[in-house]
Amino acid sequence: MLSIDNLQNTFKKKISELQLLGQPPELYEPIRYAMELGGKRMRPLLTMLACDMFGCDVQKSMDAAIGIELFHNFTLLHDDIMDQAPLRRGQETVHKRWNANRAILSGDTMFAMANRHMILTPPLCQTQVLDIFNRTAIEVCEGQQLDMNFETRQEVSVPEYLEMIRLKTAVLLAASLQIGALIAGASSADAQLLYECGMCLGLAFQLTDDLLDVYGNESTFGKMTGGDIIANKKTYLYLRALERASPEQRTLLIKLFSDTPDNPDEKINDVKGIFDALEVRVLTKQAIDCYFDLAMSHLKAIGLPESDTNVLKDYAASLMQRQV
Amino acid sequence: MLSIDNLQNTFKKKISELQLLGQPPELYEPIRYAMELGGKRMRPLLTMLACDMFGCDVQKSMDAAIGIELFHNFTLLHDDIMDQAPLRRGQETVHKRWNANRAILSGDTMFAMANRHMILTPPLCQTQVLDIFNRTAIEVCEGQQLDMNFETRQEVSVPEYLEMIRLKTAVLLAASLQIGALIAGASSADAQLLYECGMCLGLAFQLTDDLLDVYGNESTFGKMTGGDIIANKKTYLYLRALERASPEQRTLLIKLFSDTPDNPDEKINDVKGIFDALEVRVLTKQAIDCYFDLAMSHLKAIGLPESDTNVLKDYAASLMQRQV
Repeated sequence: MLSIDNLQNTFKKKISELQLLGQPPELYEPIRYAMELGGKRMRPLLTMLACDMFGCDVQKSMDAAIGIELFHNFTLLHDDIMDQAPLRRGQETVHKRWNANRAILSGDTMFAMANRHMILTPPLCQTQVLDIFNRTAIEVCEGQQLDMNFETRQEVSVPEYLEMIRLKTAVLLAASLQIGALIAGASSADAQLLYECGMCLGLAFQLTDDLLDVYGNESTFGKMTGGDIIANKKTYLYLRALERASPEQRTLLIKLFSDTPDNPDEKINDVKGIFDALEVRVLTKQAIDCYFDLAMSHLKAIGLPESDTNVLKDYAASLMQRQV
Repeated sequence: MLSIDNLQNTFKKKISELQLLGQPPELYEPIRYAMELGGKRMRPLLTMLACDMFGCDVQKSMDAAIGIELFHNFTLLHDDIMDQAPLRRGQETVHKRWNANRAILSGDTMFAMANRHMILTPPLCQTQVLDIFNRTAIEVCEGQQLDMNFETRQEVSVPEYLEMIRLKTAVLLAASLQIGALIAGASSADAQLLYECGMCLGLAFQLTDDLLDVYGNESTFGKMTGGDIIANKKTYLYLRALERASPEQRTLLIKLFSDTPDNPDEKINDVKGIFDALEVRVLTKQAIDCYFDLAMSHLKAIGLPESDTNVLKDYAASLMQRQV
């Protein structure tokens, strides 16, 4: 089994070899910029890792890994327009640095490039991989639309929120693992188990993100905490808090989440006070553990020796920052 | 050989059977709206026609035809945002009727749906068809970027313009024919000849559009003439005129094309006066004939009996409104 560092370096090398320059430069500059912004490369690593786990040369999964990373970055370009986000990974977003038209069109091109890479999967699983990939793409769009719907909706239930993050985030992690397994020649049943594993990891990962945004250590989380509270985002913590709130707490929470004060520190403190009183930190940690354990049980069901699944286990645990 | 009417009805039936409703409705409503706006359905007809021409049941090409039409309509959704177009086929554009975010995300979904339909092509030519499809998608984006670049550029040469319309319009017509041929089991060489044929038809088609926008009969053209002149669009006619203009005509033409008067009738007349003096109508007709004839020579080179190629010939001629 290859280590995460090893896989990361292999992917980095492959990305640097990509020909991301073309004509006209106005179209390709943003593509190169977006792909060079970096990030955790979580999805391609999962594809490579799954491929390796089933005993296949990871080189066979590199095109799929690149395709998935191109797709993921395409969704970021378009999401950032829709969310009017000024920054991504500490740098200007494409639509801010250039304009929305460039971000739309460069994004479209990245999606087509992604499909061209996906086509290069081995013939035996090509149809299946391409269908999973594009079905997942549709689901990611459905998730993004739900996310936008929720912004202007007063009432969002916890199950509705879970369905949104399942579509927007978890299905792509799931598909990344499944595709890696299929390329390695795993059976459809084993690949499906890995898909379910990835889905649960994806849910746990997003809930971890929600949790760390409030309670994270800023130096290990990598960004300022309180961002979701400032942005009035209906996260898992907020929705669980609303469920459990007394009428007074509910009124206060809704009021706090309809406000955008110039100095948000007091607001963050007030929200955290309610969250603490309602114990949503513990509840969220429990949900994360629950999804993580379910992910591990799917992984175990595949029946591979532990020595083959440990890299995924450790990587998944590191993503959850289980020390939280 | 099936008639164009027959092919059109077959496609209409297939489109009406598509399941274009899904969750959340905010994502799928614009997709259904866009697909029901109609249009000539030129690209899917070319795919079906090519399939039929090589003696194959058109039903085998229906998924590809749907995929290509979904793709084409996706590009319209995004182009209309970028061009801030309020109307498409006499109806509100998606970004006007809803908003830009809906048009971006519904468009993205349509592209993924398009790829899912393309995957359903027969296994023997699947890889080739998918690669042509996504390579063409990239080229269409390149063409759209060039088109946007030209809007703000003073100097555009005629060859640059031809390259732009080749990418933005012609390659998709070419690929539509090629994909239909491949599905029918035509040789790569014959499918390539049909691609070249489609490319020339695409160029002739776009130049016809440029010509009819100035000199067309409004009742047969289907829209008001003079639109490109009002919008200061650097069409083939404008660029040929600039090439041949005297210094005085050049200055006047550039001045006219930097102006947006409230009552455009006088501007249209002045521009037409220069176009007439420089004989660009004749030049454009010659170029259209030249590309059309080249298209027919590629078609002839395939070596099919005339009875098999007549439907394409007649359809192509009708697109050029060769009576102009």
